[in-house]
Amino acid sequence: MKVTVVGAGLVGCLLTCFLARRGHEVTLYERRSNPRKAGAERGRSINLAISERGIDALRRVGLDRQVLAGALPMPGRMMHAVDGALTFQPYSADGTRAINSISRGDLNRILLDAAEAMPGVEVVFDHRLTGLSEATGTLSFDTPGGPVEVEKAQVVLGADGAFSAVRAHLQWRPGFDFSQDYLDYGYKELTIPAKDGGYAMDPGALHIWPRGSSMMIALPDPGGSFTCTLFWPKSGPGSFADLDTPAKVEEHFARHYPDAQALMPDLLDDYAHNPVGHLVTMRCSPWQIQGEQTVVGLIGDAAHAIVPFYGQGANAGFEDCVELDRCLAETGDDFAAALRLYQDRRKRHADTIAELALDNFIEMRDRVASRAFLAQKKVEHALERALPGRYVSRYELVSFSTVPYADIRPRLTRQRTQVAAALALLTAGLLATRALLKGPRAKP
Amino acid sequence: MKVTVVGAGLVGCLLTCFLARRGHEVTLYERRSNPRKAGAERGRSINLAISERGIDALRRVGLDRQVLAGALPMPGRMMHAVDGALTFQPYSADGTRAINSISRGDLNRILLDAAEAMPGVEVVFDHRLTGLSEATGTLSFDTPGGPVEVEKAQVVLGADGAFSAVRAHLQWRPGFDFSQDYLDYGYKELTIPAKDGGYAMDPGALHIWPRGSSMMIALPDPGGSFTCTLFWPKSGPGSFADLDTPAKVEEHFARHYPDAQALMPDLLDDYAHNPVGHLVTMRCSPWQIQGEQTVVGLIGDAAHAIVPFYGQGANAGFEDCVELDRCLAETGDDFAAALRLYQDRRKRHADTIAELALDNFIEMRDRVASRAFLAQKKVEHALERALPGRYVSRYELVSFSTVPYADIRPRLTRQRTQVAAALALLTAGLLATRALLKGPRAKP
Repeated sequence: MKVTVVGAGLVGCLLTCFLARRGHEVTLYERRSNPRKAGAERGRSINLAISERGIDALRRVGLDRQVLAGALPMPGRMMHAVDGALTFQPYSADGTRAINSISRGDLNRILLDAAEAMPGVEVVFDHRLTGLSEATGTLSFDTPGGPVEVEKAQVVLGADGAFSAVRAHLQWRPGFDFSQDYLDYGYKELTIPAKDGGYAMDPGALHIWPRGSSMMIALPDPGGSFTCTLFWPKSGPGSFADLDTPAKVEEHFARHYPDAQALMPDLLDDYAHNPVGHLVTMRCSPWQIQGEQTVVGLIGDAAHAIVPFYGQGANAGFEDCVELDRCLAETGDDFAAALRLYQDRRKRHADTIAELALDNFIEMRDRVASRAFLAQKKVEHALERALPGRYVSRYELVSFSTVPYADIRPRLTRQRTQVAAALALLTAGLLATRALLKGPRAKP
Repeated sequence: MKVTVVGAGLVGCLLTCFLARRGHEVTLYERRSNPRKAGAERGRSINLAISERGIDALRRVGLDRQVLAGALPMPGRMMHAVDGALTFQPYSADGTRAINSISRGDLNRILLDAAEAMPGVEVVFDHRLTGLSEATGTLSFDTPGGPVEVEKAQVVLGADGAFSAVRAHLQWRPGFDFSQDYLDYGYKELTIPAKDGGYAMDPGALHIWPRGSSMMIALPDPGGSFTCTLFWPKSGPGSFADLDTPAKVEEHFARHYPDAQALMPDLLDDYAHNPVGHLVTMRCSPWQIQGEQTVVGLIGDAAHAIVPFYGQGANAGFEDCVELDRCLAETGDDFAAALRLYQDRRKRHADTIAELALDNFIEMRDRVASRAFLAQKKVEHALERALPGRYVSRYELVSFSTVPYADIRPRLTRQRTQVAAALALLTAGLLATRALLKGPRAKP
């Protein structure tokens, strides 16, 4: 089949690899210029965390080693208290499993190179989708050379992100459910540069400054720097709107992030010039529409954009590619049937990770700072070590397994029931043993 | 102020009346042609029910008598069983209060005439909004004579319905929350023509054929006919997709709506040619945006489109106009401040009626057919008569009062608590009385 993929971001490129491997001819359209020629945008989501779901997908197209070679493993969180005290908390029971900090740009270039190298793949840059008729299969693009039309596209897959142009063209079809929900929080990226030729903080951790209603995080970059991200309210006290002068910013950092401030020589310049990004959850249904001439599908953020607090946006999009590939195999590459099957199976998992990601914001900015939370994590890890493979924490199931997202909650409930039953049995056994050891009571 | 209103439907015209009365200059743009010259669209929401909220708004601009003169009061529901048995259930305790069936076209023409007759009002037809810049205040329109631009609009109010073009231009602003949720049901209009020069059924009722998972309703038209509306699933057994041949339609009506079928000579023609409409709930926030040159606001369905099952869509839109007028009065006609105040006050009421309208679909298509429901309504009406003004049913509070929608549920809870307390006191009193009447027991 001839397949059109819109969007040469992470998911569009990986999807193209999967499709080309199945023998399809793929044309991949991208609105931006070739990223290997143009520079990166300033302050927009510079790095991300790839975990087991993403790695599993990359492994299937033989890209896992190449990607991980440039990644920095983060086996735990490092919490920064206001007084500079550090607390490390491993993500897994044995402390060996890690999420991997990677540059979005590097990952995109690897995937783009891989897609372009596949037979039957053509990548076309500087093409912005402006029209889509699922009746005739006509696609319209704006290009530097003027408008361009592509006729009779049989399969169009929108991998064009949260603000998908493909989805925008489906949105006004009757029966198309859609929602976009913004948080009252924005994000802004800052930098902690390399110091004395090395990392200024431990590069083996995701750093968090939990401050209750706000937070900052930092992920290590390959070159020795850290990319920090502020997650602050958009308005009100301590918000981006509130802290609008260099003096206020300096004073706020001195009070809330003094250890980081000492490592940020460019703080005021970064703060003044990097944009405030928005945090949005997008849901829609259906993810596929069968037109007269064309079948149109949505994948990745275009189908289900989520907030970044579980580090699962790219991982979930990569998992979409694996599922669609599986559905194509099961349906003999009937795209209409495969896309329906893919939606049937995948939608509830996408809805689940959207909720988990929202919940995790509260955990990261607030709960991780409490002693009770740390104690609970220690108990959880002790249980995991005592019952390996039988008791697994939510974080591990999300980040270090490919258990489908919606199956995680029932599994956690089952685990807890089993542990409670085991504890009850253990207690009964202990009491019985004690009674036996004491022997029969002397008769009066 | 110079105000631009987009959309000369029911809410746009009434809003224009309120604004002109406050001394503002209003230009009202409408995408359709002048409805007094063009014909009505076939089978699209021919009539609607105006109740107290709508009448209260019309009263304030002196249009209530004129509108009600052409309306048909419906003081209750007439349920049609499959065997043709009829059950009438009054909407109010005393049976005198009515919702009013009115032709949407007639109501629109009355409101348009009234708006045009106000000083400072200009109505411009055949102008479809294609662009809106809240930075510069530039509006772009498509017209039969080509594109037209209007510059430096200071205040733009979108009263352009569920598929609002004004809202579509705000939708991609960061921070704009939006959702559209379709029911899996569609609607289709049919006609019961006049018979022997009169109504073929009682014109003093809203007729319902409750059929569990589906229903039909009928509202009387001024000319002696009834406009019927089918609310059927879009797919599956007994759906519009399923019943796709004249034979299947006839057979289905003979089994489920035999009494109505006997009164519908044009059933097959209506069914084949009238479109299937969609039922959608649209929510968004904010309803107002302050640009550099312009303030933009949303009102009526453009801000909160709801399903029709409580007959409150137009009534809620009219109530919006009253609230915005009040906010303008309180802020000295500062539109930016007034629109913020209007949203603060009105949003939760719009959210509430959206939920009530969804809930009422189940009541209409299913619960009204049960004896338990009718018995419960009788008890409710008896309580209302016993405690006039102190016990009022939900239906009456929605349809025959202007109690804000979100205040209805707390009031119902309070009423029920009071009735339960009164019943407890009454029971205690009866028991005490009985004990006294029996006198002291004889001692053994």
